[in-house]
Amino acid sequence: MKTAQEIAEYVGGTLEGDPRQQIHGVGSLEHAGPGMLAYAEAAYVDRVPATGASCVLVPAGDHPGRTVILVDNPRLAFARAAQWLAPAEAPQSGVHPEALVHEDAAVAPDAAIGAWTLIEHGAHVGARTVVYPGCYVGAGSRIGDDCVVFPHVVIYPGVTVGDRAVIHAGVVLGADGFGFVSDGARHVKVPQVGRAEIGSDVEIGANSCVDRAALDATAVGDGVKIDNLCQIGHNVQVGAHAIISAQTGVAGSTRIGGRSTIGGQVGIGDHCRIEEGAIVGSGGGIPSRKRVPGGVVYWGTPARPLSDVKLQQAHVSRLPKMAEELKQLRDEVQALRNRLDD
Amino acid sequence: MKTAQEIAEYVGGTLEGDPRQQIHGVGSLEHAGPGMLAYAEAAYVDRVPATGASCVLVPAGDHPGRTVILVDNPRLAFARAAQWLAPAEAPQSGVHPEALVHEDAAVAPDAAIGAWTLIEHGAHVGARTVVYPGCYVGAGSRIGDDCVVFPHVVIYPGVTVGDRAVIHAGVVLGADGFGFVSDGARHVKVPQVGRAEIGSDVEIGANSCVDRAALDATAVGDGVKIDNLCQIGHNVQVGAHAIISAQTGVAGSTRIGGRSTIGGQVGIGDHCRIEEGAIVGSGGGIPSRKRVPGGVVYWGTPARPLSDVKLQQAHVSRLPKMAEELKQLRDEVQALRNRLDD
Amino acid sequence: MKTAQEIAEYVGGTLEGDPRQQIHGVGSLEHAGPGMLAYAEAAYVDRVPATGASCVLVPAGDHPGRTVILVDNPRLAFARAAQWLAPAEAPQSGVHPEALVHEDAAVAPDAAIGAWTLIEHGAHVGARTVVYPGCYVGAGSRIGDDCVVFPHVVIYPGVTVGDRAVIHAGVVLGADGFGFVSDGARHVKVPQVGRAEIGSDVEIGANSCVDRAALDATAVGDGVKIDNLCQIGHNVQVGAHAIISAQTGVAGSTRIGGRSTIGGQVGIGDHCRIEEGAIVGSGGGIPSRKRVPGGVVYWGTPARPLSDVKLQQAHVSRLPKMAEELKQLRDEVQALRNRLDD
Repeated sequence: MKTAQEIAEYVGGTLEGDPRQQIHGVGSLEHAGPGMLAYAEAAYVDRVPATGASCVLVPAGDHPGRTVILVDNPRLAFARAAQWLAPAEAPQSGVHPEALVHEDAAVAPDAAIGAWTLIEHGAHVGARTVVYPGCYVGAGSRIGDDCVVFPHVVIYPGVTVGDRAVIHAGVVLGADGFGFVSDGARHVKVPQVGRAEIGSDVEIGANSCVDRAALDATAVGDGVKIDNLCQIGHNVQVGAHAIISAQTGVAGSTRIGGRSTIGGQVGIGDHCRIEEGAIVGSGGGIPSRKRVPGGVVYWGTPARPLSDVKLQQAHVSRLPKMAEELKQLRDEVQALRNRLDD
Repeated sequence: MKTAQEIAEYVGGTLEGDPRQQIHGVGSLEHAGPGMLAYAEAAYVDRVPATGASCVLVPAGDHPGRTVILVDNPRLAFARAAQWLAPAEAPQSGVHPEALVHEDAAVAPDAAIGAWTLIEHGAHVGARTVVYPGCYVGAGSRIGDDCVVFPHVVIYPGVTVGDRAVIHAGVVLGADGFGFVSDGARHVKVPQVGRAEIGSDVEIGANSCVDRAALDATAVGDGVKIDNLCQIGHNVQVGAHAIISAQTGVAGSTRIGGRSTIGGQVGIGDHCRIEEGAIVGSGGGIPSRKRVPGGVVYWGTPARPLSDVKLQQAHVSRLPKMAEELKQLRDEVQALRNRLDD
Repeated sequence: MKTAQEIAEYVGGTLEGDPRQQIHGVGSLEHAGPGMLAYAEAAYVDRVPATGASCVLVPAGDHPGRTVILVDNPRLAFARAAQWLAPAEAPQSGVHPEALVHEDAAVAPDAAIGAWTLIEHGAHVGARTVVYPGCYVGAGSRIGDDCVVFPHVVIYPGVTVGDRAVIHAGVVLGADGFGFVSDGARHVKVPQVGRAEIGSDVEIGANSCVDRAALDATAVGDGVKIDNLCQIGHNVQVGAHAIISAQTGVAGSTRIGGRSTIGGQVGIGDHCRIEEGAIVGSGGGIPSRKRVPGGVVYWGTPARPLSDVKLQQAHVSRLPKMAEELKQLRDEVQALRNRLDD
């Protein structure tokens, strides 16, 4: 429980209204009730008078009779305040009696290892890290401090995860990359003996996969956020603070630059170079070995600058009219010819 | 074991042939053997004479020497008869000695909880519901009556599932939605503190994900069927009896109307409004904030009415011819000019 | 530890340099160190002088002062040598005390069954097969010899897997196909009572799904390699030695010919016939009931021969120029008309 004044100070905003308003949780502008904090971005400020929330983070405006906190970025302030008001419930630390920790594994005393989780030999689990029930942490893998590993995550041997990472349920880290070479009759497996390295402050969504490298390492940089059901192929490198939305796939050896933003269901071929700050719209397809520069929105398959795609779409849309004009012109030319022939 | 006559009565059809034919199972027209029931839709009725099945559900026709049951919809009658002939084998009820049920959880006495399944505090499992081995049911979650939860399903805290739902292996319900806000340097997580509410008679395919809401609730309505490897983002609302095929992704806050049909690998952006009875063909892409009306097939990326897509494809296909015509016309105009110049 | 000479003999190559060079592992040309074997395909042979590897598999060339092995196909030779040098570490055989094997299941004495893995009644696990922790092998399922089943694989009842198959973490085999029939008001489930049959030497990537058939069998042929997060629908048949890349989905009853190559994120509709040796580029979409012939690269949605797609793309790219030409022609015709009118 905090007061509105305390929250205003925490987020660096200016309070208007009742500073002693008691706040115990967060809610949406539409459904929040008494004791709750909500937020309104500029487009929704007109809904503030009707909210049931006791306090609202707003970017501007006059809100007589309401308790509001003026901030530059209400959503950012809300994110911070929500974390502060309701820190994630951490399970009790210690190794559950139904978990198995190999005698050669190192688990920090204040880490929490859930039931039916196996920590294999040579693995390391850092301070205050929570590994939920039913996880598998392979031999020699290393999870840093303050991580949360949700149920049923599988970490193959030799994977590293930095600090403060959040790995959601069903994620598979370090499975073999997809590498085969034909001997003419059969596909011979190219042993996938590299590593997978996940940085600090990374979040990986449910049922996503990051494959281990064939040789060397697949690397996901610090602060990268990956949504659900994504596929990161072997030897891919994802630069720091990139965003990868749901169901996107990245094929082998591609490099994704730092602070790039990849939409949902994007397909990126192998050996591509997606540069720092690049933006690929949802559903876009990048053929193998292409380069996508930063700062321009790319879209479509094969992906091109969005402005090019839109221009081309406009031209294509005008095709029926163009066909009509062509027909008309043919008639006119015929008419001219007739006049000459007469 | 039922007789052909009993089956005819059960499905409301008319028997022709031997009413005492004993039926113990179901099979395909091609591979069914003695004692088995098959079905033939209109297009395959000519294959009835060659089947090894002892009884066939047919829409019409004369089938001398065979035992058939005439019904309006053979596939529907088959679906009902198959369920009746071979009800799903239910594991023994009770809590497996290797399962863990928190003392503050409520599990119906006739529910079945498999080995290495954890039912967390405050969770509820309804009557006759089967939770297979290796599942995780988070704190305060609620699963209704007569559900089947296959192995390795992860249900985060605070998720509700109605009655008679079928949740396939590897499904993740209630993982955090993908919400971040930049503070200029880093992506700050927007706490995902809402709920996920799954209705009754819902089926969700293997390894699919339904995220919890940021605030309020992600809602999957009664009777919705979701195929494998689908992604339902935070705050999405799926109306009753919608169908969503494999590998489709739905981004945040989109509303999918009741009885709509979404093909496979469809991508639906955030804040879309897919109206009741809408149909989106496989592979279609709906950009953010678009509206798709009901009753018309939409396809392509960006998705448009299928008739528009086909018309445009026809125009594009005619491009080589059009280029040729343009060239010809240029020549003719040149010829006319020459005649005038002469 | 092997000598360079032993490796040369094993892969059938010609050694140049020091035959007694000791090799204990493999690495990339860039990062390998002393005692390691690397390989260089033709395009990278110029990097051989700078490598830290003690021995390099090369296709040709003169490499004074280096120990190299000349082979026709360096990547293939490397794959073989790497497997030989570092055979996969197998867990100890036997049933882990925390595993549960039904008394009516048959587990080979030299198989390894990990903790919290359940082998249901009537199931069979073959010789030297490893089933990692947390797997579920349903009633009557059958896994052949020398397979590796990684953690958290769920095999529904009645699924068969051949010999030497590799099934990665989170894979779901034999879940219900997506089959419903409307009774006008609701979707009635069509019982999925068929089987799923996985051949020998198959590899299936993490979190992929192969559904059981409605009736009869879904079949994945010998030597097929399926990448992560793929969906193989009910009654699909995948011919021997086909390759299916990540996030591809194949809808019901489609047949994929032997030795075909399907790229990533491909969508294949139901009842398609993809013929032997077909090639579908990444992101391609095959509408229901289409036939794709072998030996030609198909791409796009709806997929067509790549040459057609490229030709059409070229025509579309020329649209702005074409519009310009059309306008010019209109002006010229107008000019001619003016001359005639004068």
